[in-house]
Amino acid sequence: MADERAKKVSEEATEAVRRTWRDPKVDISREREVSTVDSGALACVLAGGEESLKRRGVLSRLLQAEPWANKADRYFLSREELHKRGLQVAIGIRELVEKHGLSYDDALTMRKLVDLPGGFELHFGMWMPTLLNQGTEEQLEKWMGPSIGMEILGTYAQTELGHGTFLKGLETTASFDEERDEFIVNSPTNTATKWWPGGLGKTATHAVVMCRLFIKGRDYGPHPFVVQLRDLETHLPLPGRTIGDIGPKMGYNGVDNGFLSFDHVRIPRGALLQRYTKVTREGSYVPPPKQNAKSSYATMVSVRADIVEYAGEVLSKAVTIAVRYNAVRRQTTSVPGQPEEIILNYQQSARNLISQIAISYALLFMGRSMHQMHESFEADRESGDFGLLPELHATSSCLKALCTWLTTSGIEICRQSCGGQGYSVLSGLPGLYTNYVQNLTWEGDNTILCLQTARYLTKTLMSILQAHKRGDSQPALAETVAYLAGTVQEDPFLDLSRQDLELHDLFSFEVLDSLMSQRSLFVAKQALENLEANARRMEVRVQLGEGLAWNASHVSLVKLAKCHGWLLLHRSFFGQVAALEKDAKLPDSSVKVLRDVAFLFTLCHVEDSLGDFLEGNILLPSQASVIHEAVQELLRKLRTEAVALVDAFSHDDYSLNSAIGSRDGDVYNRLLRMARSSPFNATQEGPAWDAILNPFFNRGKRTAKL
Amino acid sequence: MADERAKKVSEEATEAVRRTWRDPKVDISREREVSTVDSGALACVLAGGEESLKRRGVLSRLLQAEPWANKADRYFLSREELHKRGLQVAIGIRELVEKHGLSYDDALTMRKLVDLPGGFELHFGMWMPTLLNQGTEEQLEKWMGPSIGMEILGTYAQTELGHGTFLKGLETTASFDEERDEFIVNSPTNTATKWWPGGLGKTATHAVVMCRLFIKGRDYGPHPFVVQLRDLETHLPLPGRTIGDIGPKMGYNGVDNGFLSFDHVRIPRGALLQRYTKVTREGSYVPPPKQNAKSSYATMVSVRADIVEYAGEVLSKAVTIAVRYNAVRRQTTSVPGQPEEIILNYQQSARNLISQIAISYALLFMGRSMHQMHESFEADRESGDFGLLPELHATSSCLKALCTWLTTSGIEICRQSCGGQGYSVLSGLPGLYTNYVQNLTWEGDNTILCLQTARYLTKTLMSILQAHKRGDSQPALAETVAYLAGTVQEDPFLDLSRQDLELHDLFSFEVLDSLMSQRSLFVAKQALENLEANARRMEVRVQLGEGLAWNASHVSLVKLAKCHGWLLLHRSFFGQVAALEKDAKLPDSSVKVLRDVAFLFTLCHVEDSLGDFLEGNILLPSQASVIHEAVQELLRKLRTEAVALVDAFSHDDYSLNSAIGSRDGDVYNRLLRMARSSPFNATQEGPAWDAILNPFFNRGKRTAKL
Repeated sequence: MADERAKKVSEEATEAVRRTWRDPKVDISREREVSTVDSGALACVLAGGEESLKRRGVLSRLLQAEPWANKADRYFLSREELHKRGLQVAIGIRELVEKHGLSYDDALTMRKLVDLPGGFELHFGMWMPTLLNQGTEEQLEKWMGPSIGMEILGTYAQTELGHGTFLKGLETTASFDEERDEFIVNSPTNTATKWWPGGLGKTATHAVVMCRLFIKGRDYGPHPFVVQLRDLETHLPLPGRTIGDIGPKMGYNGVDNGFLSFDHVRIPRGALLQRYTKVTREGSYVPPPKQNAKSSYATMVSVRADIVEYAGEVLSKAVTIAVRYNAVRRQTTSVPGQPEEIILNYQQSARNLISQIAISYALLFMGRSMHQMHESFEADRESGDFGLLPELHATSSCLKALCTWLTTSGIEICRQSCGGQGYSVLSGLPGLYTNYVQNLTWEGDNTILCLQTARYLTKTLMSILQAHKRGDSQPALAETVAYLAGTVQEDPFLDLSRQDLELHDLFSFEVLDSLMSQRSLFVAKQALENLEANARRMEVRVQLGEGLAWNASHVSLVKLAKCHGWLLLHRSFFGQVAALEKDAKLPDSSVKVLRDVAFLFTLCHVEDSLGDFLEGNILLPSQASVIHEAVQELLRKLRTEAVALVDAFSHDDYSLNSAIGSRDGDVYNRLLRMARSSPFNATQEGPAWDAILNPFFNRGKRTAKL
Repeated sequence: MADERAKKVSEEATEAVRRTWRDPKVDISREREVSTVDSGALACVLAGGEESLKRRGVLSRLLQAEPWANKADRYFLSREELHKRGLQVAIGIRELVEKHGLSYDDALTMRKLVDLPGGFELHFGMWMPTLLNQGTEEQLEKWMGPSIGMEILGTYAQTELGHGTFLKGLETTASFDEERDEFIVNSPTNTATKWWPGGLGKTATHAVVMCRLFIKGRDYGPHPFVVQLRDLETHLPLPGRTIGDIGPKMGYNGVDNGFLSFDHVRIPRGALLQRYTKVTREGSYVPPPKQNAKSSYATMVSVRADIVEYAGEVLSKAVTIAVRYNAVRRQTTSVPGQPEEIILNYQQSARNLISQIAISYALLFMGRSMHQMHESFEADRESGDFGLLPELHATSSCLKALCTWLTTSGIEICRQSCGGQGYSVLSGLPGLYTNYVQNLTWEGDNTILCLQTARYLTKTLMSILQAHKRGDSQPALAETVAYLAGTVQEDPFLDLSRQDLELHDLFSFEVLDSLMSQRSLFVAKQALENLEANARRMEVRVQLGEGLAWNASHVSLVKLAKCHGWLLLHRSFFGQVAALEKDAKLPDSSVKVLRDVAFLFTLCHVEDSLGDFLEGNILLPSQASVIHEAVQELLRKLRTEAVALVDAFSHDDYSLNSAIGSRDGDVYNRLLRMARSSPFNATQEGPAWDAILNPFFNRGKRTAKL
């Protein structure tokens, strides 16, 4: 429609603009050419073999053919639509599994690829596992069949409006009525209302409800009871149950997290899950065997290994998007007439993002290491050996906390490094963050988990010091905490503060391991001293894990747990790289790059927490500059590997669903395409024209007409 | 409905539970009793006088009577509803102003209280101000009338899909057609598409469009042109304009941020805003006077003062919610049968939140200081003295960046310290975060602003060093950067590393000021050395603000800008407290507490960045422990003042709209009430029953019927 003359007049301007324009598709392919990493081979390693990588591709294509798995409208769905879609996805995957005879692992993979949790999550994730672990044969017979057939849908109701982590504080009661051989489930306060369980709001028909068991007025503490919530025909709540959805959340809105309170609801005695605990007809209580607690700890460990692995998957998605965008996004040139500079070539962008690549690898490798720990524990356990459990529990506690914290802050670093586009939901980054952050609280609040680790570490340190004081032989220490014995040993560590530190000295696992161990030991001693000082000040005795002095020392104790976690991440990263070097599944050049990534991981952390290393005299102030140099050198070395390193995470475009993070780098066309499809653009006038804007513009005329 | 026997059997359990239950309303009122702060008097000080505080209350009540200002359903609105509501709010406020003859400030206050930005934001915020600053008399005559009357709605279209901060890189062109005496506005590439302008998507009828001006093929750089976008009758885009909404964002979804591209659109020569720049009929270009750039810098400074003040307001909202919740939320007791501990009594919670109270005060006081700086600058400017401008510009750049970063991270610290409830939208915290974070990018990307400050600081430092080297007299330095001269002076600072540091030594402004100044100077020298080292390595000359070496030194330069900003915040905080002490508007006890808050502000930062202080030999490793002690002591002292200190921010319940942050502490009833009103709970069966769950449950039967 434009007139020819207009085009003619604009020609020179158009040429001038196009001269400096660059095609992002070309920019990103150049990144791949210059890299020395074999991202294909590395992808296989990370995916656990070529087979499972291929498998993921097959399942992804399978999903993309299904309307319910289509992500084109994902970012435009209302909460209600999201909730419906979440259920359709779960049903759809179930049908695909039946239709194609897929495995359970395939189903899990598809769940991750679709990435839309819904109302059935806890049916599979908590309801059925709890029945299996805690139910008797008869109980399984009664509930497992219909659960597998999904004729009934379950959830797990533990958290209450007023009570989270502290189980003993739960206020929902189950009182035994000897006369009728029933329990009466009741919510005596508003804070006793069950709050948060996924699927409880509008989906679940049944729930395992954690109640404090009372028999003849005596409190036996929290126990799991199966309670039917809704009528199976009408789906209406049964009498005495008040049920609802708790409202919108920052993310995770496909799931109908719910609330539930009871007004003296009668349930049969057989509703108590009683594989380990029983209440007899006469109302006498049969307590659980000790082993049981231990085995449930073991399950907790494998759950946490999954959490750590998942933290790595989510962060690796975020950094894939951010690195690809920063590798094609251009901004500012000091040379007039030249194309603008690629943002990833600016040091700050590299520091932000390449360090997040390193953290992603560290988390993925840590997940792998934790699964290995868990397996070896399970092996010992067969032979009744629970010796490793306390260490495993302490280890997994701080790692759950640290890794979910790292992913939470890492996603935001990635999102913010994408500037305005990172604020657009279409980038995929806001959703990654808002859906993920709940992991800081879920499965154990991070602060409280850190305190559990701190309790184990301070206890170990105290036993070492006391043995030393008494001149006794040192207690046997688990491998991960052996460094604590350094406090009573002579020259236990490679001491760098005595020599001039050269750049090349730092590129050694032993050197970094010595630094990290000494730091963690220093912080442990500091935390214990702080605890003792607070106890003196408050004139109370030193208690580990509780008490006034402990509560007044949380900051140094939480810090200790984090430092221990960093040490574990550092060791697992180098350990996995060493293993890769042995089994030679990767070209040497790729292993070399991975080792540099490991160095960057640890050295960025040393740089970010220099205060500890200097305060502990582990490094001298004069040595700090070498740390800065080392980080800068690694960033330069790894700059050209960045895109290949994120390609190796092998998140396909379907999985990322990002306008700015797709593999081909075609950022701007994709942003335009996705924006055009927004429901807001269904009409040219927009959603507010008829009801608001048009009347507003015509208000003058209307009043005139009166 | 519950049977009497059931109640009877449950009685003992109910009593046992109620014995440890505590009423949050009682807990929070106790907090107010024990505080020594006169929160009423402090509120007046913060609000700038009792009058404006009262005024805010009046306006709040006025709003609460209006349906469009009602927040009861705010958290349940779809994006479309949010957009409509945003327009209704702007129209509603306009009508209230007319009806009650309210002032412009009243309107701004109401806008903040309703807190729902919409499609008219840039009409008032950018379109009209730009016309006023850049338009000639005739142009004002033509557009201001209808703009004030809101017969036309404007926006400001600068940012493009491919171009943000770097203005010279804009790709939208305006070529002068001498023959027709018109400009031809065109988008030669997809990246030239205007992207982000608020209200552009579906609301605005006009826009100031920044285009690169081309005359006879010569590029004169970006200039503002007024372009009509939509037909005033049909609201449809005029020919040659492609307009739409850019889709959902992480927050701020009441606003229809839009995209816009041009296909050779003809506009008259008079569409160029030409108060300072002209294009004559013959196509010769009349450049702007120098002063103009300077005066626009000045406006930028006052805008940034507002941003800093706003950062303080938003963070103070978040910390009000979090402190009130942490003051009533209870968790864990080590003494069986006792009520659980109030979370704020745990040291970690106090460290997280009381430090955020301190930052909130620091930001609010900094905003005040910046406005004072700006006023004194305006005074000098009257007499043509622009001397302070470079400093003012550098100062405001790093402060915009640092303060928006602090608020962003601070909101999340507050949100996360509320555990699960902080993840619920009903807490108000997720919305504070998702709506706020855009401020990191908006009005100048934070990293780039930091680099502008770093450029000024390194330049100043270089001039000091060169003058010293040449033995010349030192250049005159603005007050805020005078500390840089310390690098060539003998004993310029109070040197603490020479003495034993006692706890009481730290509670002195002079001592802390010396620490903070030395740290900032050390980081400045480090950044300059890093820049020079990179220049040597790359064999290029040292350039400030651009060039390869500069781009390879961003990390230390950005750090420098942040450290300078921290120093400014520290000084402004103590300065404002000193002023309060003088004018005696506050009881001494309250001033005393405020000074402790200032100490906490600076000492928490010193503790968090100990690495700098030790690396710079400003503190000795052996002195670090005193810093930790000081922070712990201040946290203990301020624990009982926390609730009163957030009360003083005087955000009323309407403004906070938080289930867990209301003044009365009635957290749990409010959560239940708000959740019940969720549209998800409109029916017992929920939104997915008819379409999905019911068919799914009956699938078996249906197939049977086949």
